[in-house]
Amino acid sequence: MEERGANSAAGADLHLELSGTAGRAELVRALHDSIRSGRLPAGTRLPSSRSLAKDLGIARNTVADAYGQLVAEGWLTARQGSGTLVAERVLPAAGVATPGREAPGTFDRPSYRYDLTPGSPDLSTFPRNEWLAAARKALPAAPNDAFGYGDPRGRIELRENLADYLARARGVRADPDRILICSGYVQALNLLTDVLRQQGATTMSVEEFGYSLHWDVIRSRGLQPTPVPVDEYGVRSDLLQGQAALLTPAHQMPLGVPLAPDRRTRAVEWARDSDAILIEDDYDGEFRYDRQSVGALQALDPERVVYTGTASKSLAPGLRLAWMVLPEHLMEPVLAVKRTTDLLTATLDQLVLAEYIASGHYDRHVRRTRQHYRRRRDHLVELLAARAPGVTVAGISAGLHVLLDVPGDAADMVARARRQGLLIATLDHYRFTPNPAERQALVVGYGTPPDHSYNGALDLLCQILAV
Amino acid sequence: MEERGANSAAGADLHLELSGTAGRAELVRALHDSIRSGRLPAGTRLPSSRSLAKDLGIARNTVADAYGQLVAEGWLTARQGSGTLVAERVLPAAGVATPGREAPGTFDRPSYRYDLTPGSPDLSTFPRNEWLAAARKALPAAPNDAFGYGDPRGRIELRENLADYLARARGVRADPDRILICSGYVQALNLLTDVLRQQGATTMSVEEFGYSLHWDVIRSRGLQPTPVPVDEYGVRSDLLQGQAALLTPAHQMPLGVPLAPDRRTRAVEWARDSDAILIEDDYDGEFRYDRQSVGALQALDPERVVYTGTASKSLAPGLRLAWMVLPEHLMEPVLAVKRTTDLLTATLDQLVLAEYIASGHYDRHVRRTRQHYRRRRDHLVELLAARAPGVTVAGISAGLHVLLDVPGDAADMVARARRQGLLIATLDHYRFTPNPAERQALVVGYGTPPDHSYNGALDLLCQILAV
Repeated sequence: MEERGANSAAGADLHLELSGTAGRAELVRALHDSIRSGRLPAGTRLPSSRSLAKDLGIARNTVADAYGQLVAEGWLTARQGSGTLVAERVLPAAGVATPGREAPGTFDRPSYRYDLTPGSPDLSTFPRNEWLAAARKALPAAPNDAFGYGDPRGRIELRENLADYLARARGVRADPDRILICSGYVQALNLLTDVLRQQGATTMSVEEFGYSLHWDVIRSRGLQPTPVPVDEYGVRSDLLQGQAALLTPAHQMPLGVPLAPDRRTRAVEWARDSDAILIEDDYDGEFRYDRQSVGALQALDPERVVYTGTASKSLAPGLRLAWMVLPEHLMEPVLAVKRTTDLLTATLDQLVLAEYIASGHYDRHVRRTRQHYRRRRDHLVELLAARAPGVTVAGISAGLHVLLDVPGDAADMVARARRQGLLIATLDHYRFTPNPAERQALVVGYGTPPDHSYNGALDLLCQILAV
Repeated sequence: MEERGANSAAGADLHLELSGTAGRAELVRALHDSIRSGRLPAGTRLPSSRSLAKDLGIARNTVADAYGQLVAEGWLTARQGSGTLVAERVLPAAGVATPGREAPGTFDRPSYRYDLTPGSPDLSTFPRNEWLAAARKALPAAPNDAFGYGDPRGRIELRENLADYLARARGVRADPDRILICSGYVQALNLLTDVLRQQGATTMSVEEFGYSLHWDVIRSRGLQPTPVPVDEYGVRSDLLQGQAALLTPAHQMPLGVPLAPDRRTRAVEWARDSDAILIEDDYDGEFRYDRQSVGALQALDPERVVYTGTASKSLAPGLRLAWMVLPEHLMEPVLAVKRTTDLLTATLDQLVLAEYIASGHYDRHVRRTRQHYRRRRDHLVELLAARAPGVTVAGISAGLHVLLDVPGDAADMVARARRQGLLIATLDHYRFTPNPAERQALVVGYGTPPDHSYNGALDLLCQILAV
């Protein structure tokens, strides 16, 4: 990375970190970073495109295009006579960066009337009464030490039930002793990254589409995430590099494709040949509609693949419960980091979830919500076919979101939707290196809205897409 | 730090990191570290004292003394004819390192019949039925978004009730907007340390007595903990150094004294003069028996002092719920780290605790358990006076542990107690730089045992101390 000098123009001193020759995508990314990190606070006036272009030694059109995109995305505002400003937190930085509303600043986020970004299940499906019933069984039955400082791997009751469930439902080769209960998937990734760095890793391959939050987590622990191309067969596992790779084999986020069989094999071979670790992010493996779920990659080589799963999609993100199934050689180092991170994950909900799984309610809940989301998906697909025939729908066979190729400028549609109270996101928003010209597509999460607003959300979406 | 070369003697290759001239204390610490970290696994044969002394260029007696101490503490075993070995995990490393049983390896820990180490409350006091009743009120009443990715500071219901409680019970100047709910105190310390390091800090003053786990957390995030002497008036706040200090002002752990008024003032002045941050660890501020609790140091300067509190002693460690009250300028940086650490703390127990506080049950529970622990303390003090008159008891006015100055070798008493099934710890065990000769004292936690074994534990303790 080369840091070009400050360019002090009409507005802010703008320190941009640009690598190599700055194209539009580079510039967009650098501005994103500056706004997200708070280096450019809301209300900051940016230099004119002419002035910034001169400072950076690039074409004025490149700057103007980048500004235009950021205006469309809501990061900047352009007002006649007052130039280009960093937007007031109409849509706070973090909200854009992580549509799962997974970030500081989230609490400043204005509520959109409708939310069709992916990342959150329908929170109204959380089985409050069944959960309370499980708690009424689990808490009185628990030994006293369940309330104390206990096994840093988590409660044995939950690890045993999970081992059984994961083997049955996801084909995971799981031993309760190799399971670590984490405080959410972000923590799992955090712990793993830290251990890999301690062991000498410097680079982690990531799919070129995904959540920027995850890349931030990897960076925060000192590894460099490196994007690997993804196509209709999933990630190009022949191009993996570094000492680890983070993959979504069952259902690529956000393209929605499963990793093709030969690429699964290739990924594991790469890990063996390179002495590398694969991290399998099985965030919504339960939700497959058209055929049997794609089994966990982990089963191909449990000593090379760390399986990670979560209750965030199947039950509720607020539980902050996730689990890793670890290779033997990573167990002790990961536990050592867990110790200085938060000692162990809270135990009461672990006891309840163990009971909830053991009683069969978890399986029933997954089946019930799978039907629920499948109906929503069918409704969305039918409606789009009827009202927005120019749109191509992909990634429909699983998960809680679809990919829409749209006949028009995707960023422009997002901006219009937001002005009308509908939060959606472009595919480009999930791209490691933004490149808005490459593919005009939207990622639409149909899991998030509660039932009473789902039809309204779809109606507005169709209006935007039909234009 | 200088790393002296490997010394390959009769037994293991022994890589010891020794700083400066190695005395007995240095050597004991280096061996502790090697065993704790797993570099010296159980069963490893150590070089003879003669051989190691030669390799390190120190007196043979120094090595022999260090070995002797570690044998007494249960880290090593010495057998006629087979030399000195790292002990099988009769008492696993982590159990000794962090008597709150707060470490990986904990799950290997054999159960002692009696446990009088400090750090855990009596787990049988956890109010299971009241907690379930609060859950039955709180969960159905919660909005849907309580189950989602929400405010990274934690649920507003809990922050509001805590702000009120902390002001009332602990004299904290608390605003719900400045409270961050954490996944336990270890996480609070982890987040703070990381932010301070990002802001350029290199050194954090710590009290010379405390938990090694906390020092490990500080180190894990790249700061150097630096011990500051503690006497009968608390920490020598005229000797604070670095860019931050971690203090237990209400009740020094483990000496049991409150920080004297002039030293409180001095600490805050130091923070102002040095542009430093004080971290107030108010781990058991609720438990004061003889007079009004000592109010929080934070009230003296909320922009310089981070207040941290926890439900681990007042309710249960398994809840993993702690809270920080942050200066305004630290709020955003700490939230940014929280985001890549675990996004937010699990929300369900937050809702329940909010209801538990709001209904008045929390206050009643604290009063009830305060009486419970007070009776235990009284019983302990009376028994010792009668059966072990050579013992001097200190630190009795608050908390869940006392300090016993004993007429004999403290490490020897601990070893004898453990052989008889009673887990206790020396004061020296809590010392930053072990120095077993300086003061023969034990730290006895009377909070941990359940009622049915408390009398048995005290009986065994008196037998050990009376000899």
